[in-house]
Order: sequence, then structure tokens, then C-alpha cells
Amino acid sequence: MHLTTIEWKPDTPGKPIPGRVRMIDQSRLPEELVYMETADVREVWSAIKALRIRGAPAIGVAGAMGIVTAVQAISADESRDIVHAVQEAADYLGTSRPTAANLFWALERMKRVAAQSAALSPAELKQRLASEAIAIRDEDARMCRAIGEHGVALLEDGFTVLTHCNAGGLATAEYGTALAPVYVAHERGMDIRVFADETRPLLQGSRLTAWELLENGVDVTLICDSVAAQVMKEGRVDCVMVGADRIAANGDTANKIGTYSLALAARAHDIPFYVLAPTSTFDLARKSGDEIPIEHRDANEVICGFGKLTAPLDVKVYAPAFDVTPAELIAAIVCEKGVVRPPFADGLRGIVGS
Amino acid sequence: MHLTTIEWKPDTPGKPIPGRVRMIDQSRLPEELVYMETADVREVWSAIKALRIRGAPAIGVAGAMGIVTAVQAISADESRDIVHAVQEAADYLGTSRPTAANLFWALERMKRVAAQSAALSPAELKQRLASEAIAIRDEDARMCRAIGEHGVALLEDGFTVLTHCNAGGLATAEYGTALAPVYVAHERGMDIRVFADETRPLLQGSRLTAWELLENGVDVTLICDSVAAQVMKEGRVDCVMVGADRIAANGDTANKIGTYSLALAARAHDIPFYVLAPTSTFDLARKSGDEIPIEHRDANEVICGFGKLTAPLDVKVYAPAFDVTPAELIAAIVCEKGVVRPPFADGLRGIVGS
Repeated sequence: MHLTTIEWKPDTPGKPIPGRVRMIDQSRLPEELVYMETADVREVWSAIKALRIRGAPAIGVAGAMGIVTAVQAISADESRDIVHAVQEAADYLGTSRPTAANLFWALERMKRVAAQSAALSPAELKQRLASEAIAIRDEDARMCRAIGEHGVALLEDGFTVLTHCNAGGLATAEYGTALAPVYVAHERGMDIRVFADETRPLLQGSRLTAWELLENGVDVTLICDSVAAQVMKEGRVDCVMVGADRIAANGDTANKIGTYSLALAARAHDIPFYVLAPTSTFDLARKSGDEIPIEHRDANEVICGFGKLTAPLDVKVYAPAFDVTPAELIAAIVCEKGVVRPPFADGLRGIVGS
Repeated sequence: MHLTTIEWKPDTPGKPIPGRVRMIDQSRLPEELVYMETADVREVWSAIKALRIRGAPAIGVAGAMGIVTAVQAISADESRDIVHAVQEAADYLGTSRPTAANLFWALERMKRVAAQSAALSPAELKQRLASEAIAIRDEDARMCRAIGEHGVALLEDGFTVLTHCNAGGLATAEYGTALAPVYVAHERGMDIRVFADETRPLLQGSRLTAWELLENGVDVTLICDSVAAQVMKEGRVDCVMVGADRIAANGDTANKIGTYSLALAARAHDIPFYVLAPTSTFDLARKSGDEIPIEHRDANEVICGFGKLTAPLDVKVYAPAFDVTPAELIAAIVCEKGVVRPPFADGLRGIVGS
């Protein structure tokens, strides 16, 4: 794994601030690999807004580091001015992707740390905030690595994995969730191949997943979403690994639209279907997938997603962003704490409490 | 049904030749409805080549009419010169889409008629050829209409039909195959809605199916292919209707890639899955789908289909053009002679012989 999606670069080694956020500009992929570096909170805001950085965990890290860029720039005689600046920066950064739960989680954590550390000197408080943002990033990387370590037990040498959307390193600090076992297996010298669904309408599979797997030297073949059932029928797939946006208490899993279709095809071909996601994705307050709200996307993403009108302008479009895969189609849910097998109701509750 | 995909327009009413081919320029869809008219065989050739006219039956009609444009332009003292010109024109037109079986079928039919009618005067022979080309078109329209009349029995007022790719009027002279029952139902005042899969990679569903249904006043909603299973799960689909490229003796059906995935999803939701295609699609010499060869498409259609690179340029792509839906997932096969129910082996043989 030689790609780092997002990290903090101190100007002076060993001294967290002043420093800059360094991240892959995902809006330039797959055409070119460009890193952007910035010490300007407004540039962090616009990077989140313009999807230069995307994927729930990666956005959270960007938000936390954005706060550090904001506070390191101010000269404050009193720490309470810094605490105030953190709140202002958090409010501001929150407007970049108002529906990104992980962004708000990270911003809240930074606000809490600021409030709890108000007794420190201004210089110490700034350092503390930088350390916290770096910790958020490192925890994410460790969590993904742990998902990979647990998930690799589901793979055998020579396996071919089919995946959907991008639950890879680009969505997180490193490794990703669904792709973490693939990377761990690859590091261990196992021969693992991947089929990547292109994932209409936004093509995260072709733009991001195919790109990052190639970049990391993993054998990847791109397919249109509708080809997945056919490659399964041809006996070319050993298991399916996907990420999750939200997992209900009974194991029902909301993930990118098309995941459910894939799960049905996997079941028809007796291919195990695995969900890989951190415990922060578990929403045990929701009993089942019926209680998970499904966001709908703009018709334009479907009818002119490639910069060219590909459908009648006035056609009705039905474009759910997610679907819910019923627990009975899922062979295992892998999180940073281990592998949960059905029945999920007990397993998920147990592993969260462990 | 107020759209005519392709027809012959005599310069003088009641006198077939001289005349012109008139067809919808499908390369301009869905942005604008433009009819092209030509009396030049080279323009007919390039219209087929450039997919201005596409869909197996429609291409066959274009080929036959292309021959008429070639022979009406020559002044021949002897009918054998015309027979010779027909052969030359057929050879030439055959190079426009060398894999289009229906094109060759129509060109052969025109050559046979020319040879059989060589005793006529040159003027009479030209008229005979024009009549044959018009007959090929009219037979196609009648055949599609018959599929529609038989297939409408599978629909009820208020039904929602899900379809894939374009097996509509634009692929034929009129009505289409999979969409023929929808048009017949619509003419009869039944309330029928359609979900149209966009059909990656070439988007025939969004570019053509959605367009022609809208144009004919049928309620249509466009979805990404991966959404089909979800709309079925939501109880929004009463049946699936698709066309076919080839149907084996046991009922296994080759059709546009994604059809198999759709059939699996339909089965999982107990939704009847219907195939609608003329008997000319039946390939009873092939025992099962295992014997149907599957053409593969160029990777570029997937990675930069709309003029923009959407995947790494060097990624491997697996792009079968068709898949095979096993007969056991098909509730009925509708052809111009009637509705065939399982077991298909007897039913298909019987209806062809009837």
C-alpha cells in the first residue's frame, strides 16, 4: 500500500505545526495523480465541497485537519480565542458537505478536545489540536488495517473478489474497508484478483477503485454493473466484498445502489457475500433496513453524467443513492473488531460491546 | 404509434420508384428528432455503418431499400444488368455491418427476387424490387404488431413493465418486439408504465427506449441498470419484458448484457420475466445457451464511451455484449405466432412448425 489518501505534513519534522494537509486530488482521477497541499482552511472547505476528497472517513480526517489549518493561522494571546476559532472553523467546514455524518463526528471531536484543553497555553493548545487531527487519521488507518487483517481470513490464495463502488483506500486514510483484505492479502504475497463494478451513475468503481488497485499493483478487471451476474455464472468469482453506509441491528445493510442486485446474484450462484465496515457504521438503534432512510440523487447524474446528454432531458428518473441488502443474503460482516456471522442481531451487539 | 423508424417514400404517390428511403437518424437521438431521406446507396451504407439506423430488423429493411436506391439510379437496357447491379449493391451494403445477420438475410432475399424475376423488363424488375423492399418493411411491421397483440394478453390495466436495452420501435420498422405489447396496450387506452434500464455501456435504454416511449406518450421512468432489483423489491414492477438476439431450442435466451441479472432479480421477487422476439430469432439447431457464441465489445465503450475518460486507460475490461438467460427463469416467450410457455423445447418447435 504505497498510496496515502490524506495526511498532515509538518513544515518542520517532529513539530506538528505549522504544517499542511496533503491529499490526493480525487477530482483529477483517473487521469492523473495529483497531490494537493494546503494550509488554508478555505481550500480544505472547497476540496471537500468539490469532492477532491471523498469517502466518509477521509472527509472526517479532512475536516479535523481543516480546523488545524484555521487555528495555526491565528495569533491569539488567550486560549479561549483558539477555542472560539475552532468552533467557527467547525461551523464553516460543516457547510461543505452538510449530509456527511463522519465530517460532523470529526468536527465535534475537535471542538470537544479544544474545550477540554482550554487550560493549555495557546501554543500548547494548537499542538494538542494538531495531534488530535493526526490521531483521527491514524486511528482510521489502524481501523482499516484491522478490518483487512480480519477479512483476509475469508480469502484464499488464488481467489477473485468482486467489489462495488469505492470502499477502498481513497475513501479512507489508507487501505479502505471492502478492499482492506485485498491489500493485506496482496502484501502477504497472495494471488488475489478483483472485478470492480463501474458503479453507475457516478462511476466510483471505474474512476477510483480500478485506479487505486492498479496503482497498488493488484490485478483488477473493470466491468459494467450489469456484467456482475454473468462473471459469477462463468465461475470467475469466489466472493463479493462491499462496504456499507449503515448497518441495522439485524444486519440489513445500506450501501451504494446496486449492492442489493449483486447480493441477489451472489446468492443465486452460491457465492459468499461479505460486508466490511467499521463499527461506527453500525446503527443498532434501527431494528432493520426498513428504518434506514434512502437518499435520492439528482436526475442529471444519470442523464448527463458524462458531460453529454444521454437521455431525453424531460424523462423521469428514479435514482436512489443506496439500497438495502437484507441480512439473509450476507455471509459475514467484518469490522475492526472481528468477523460477525449470522445471526447478526446477537453478533453485532456483542462485538460492539466487546 | 406515430413514429415510423424507416419507410420508402415514392417521388410520385402510387408509383414505387423513383423514391427515397426515409428514416429517423438515431445518432441524433435523444437530442433531436431528425429524419434523413436519401436516394443514394452510399448514404444508406454510411447510415447503417454510423448506426443512424440500428436494430436487426430495421437494418434489414435499410439494406433492402438501399438496393432499390442503387438499381433505380442505373439506366439498363437489359434486366440481367439490373440483376448484376443488385448483386454488386448487396455485396457493397453487406460491408456496412458485417456481423448483422438480418442485413444479410434481407440482401439475400433481394438477390433471390432479382434472379427469379430476370424475365421481367428492366422497368418492371425495378418496380418488383421496390415492392419487395416495401414488403420486407411491412412484414416486419406486421410481425411486431402480432407480437404486440399476443403479448398484450400478459398485461393488465395499471401494470408497470420493466425493460432492458432497446427492443422498441426504433429497432424495427414500427412497434418493436419487447415494447410492442406496451404500445398495443397504450393504443387500447390501458394505463401502462415502463421502467427503462439505461443499459450500459451504450445506453440504448436511455438514449432510445426512454426517448421513443416519451415520444409516443407512454409513461416511462429511466433507471440505472443496478436499480432494477431495488424497484422490484419496492413492489413497483409487475413484469419484465425484453427482446432477444438468439433463442436456443430449450428456450435459453441470449440478449443484451444485463438481461440475465434482471432475470435473477425478477425470480427473487416472483415477477414474471417475458422474452419477446420473432421466430426468426429462434435458433433451434442450438440445443442450449451453452452453444450460443458471445461476442465481446471494445473496452473503450466502457472506459470512455461518452467522449470522456472515466477509468484508467490501461485497466483491463471484461465486456461481453450479451449474456444468456437460462430457460428456467423465463415465464413465456412471445413471438408473432403466439405465446409459448414452458417446457419450451416442445413449444418452440411446435410454434415454428405451425
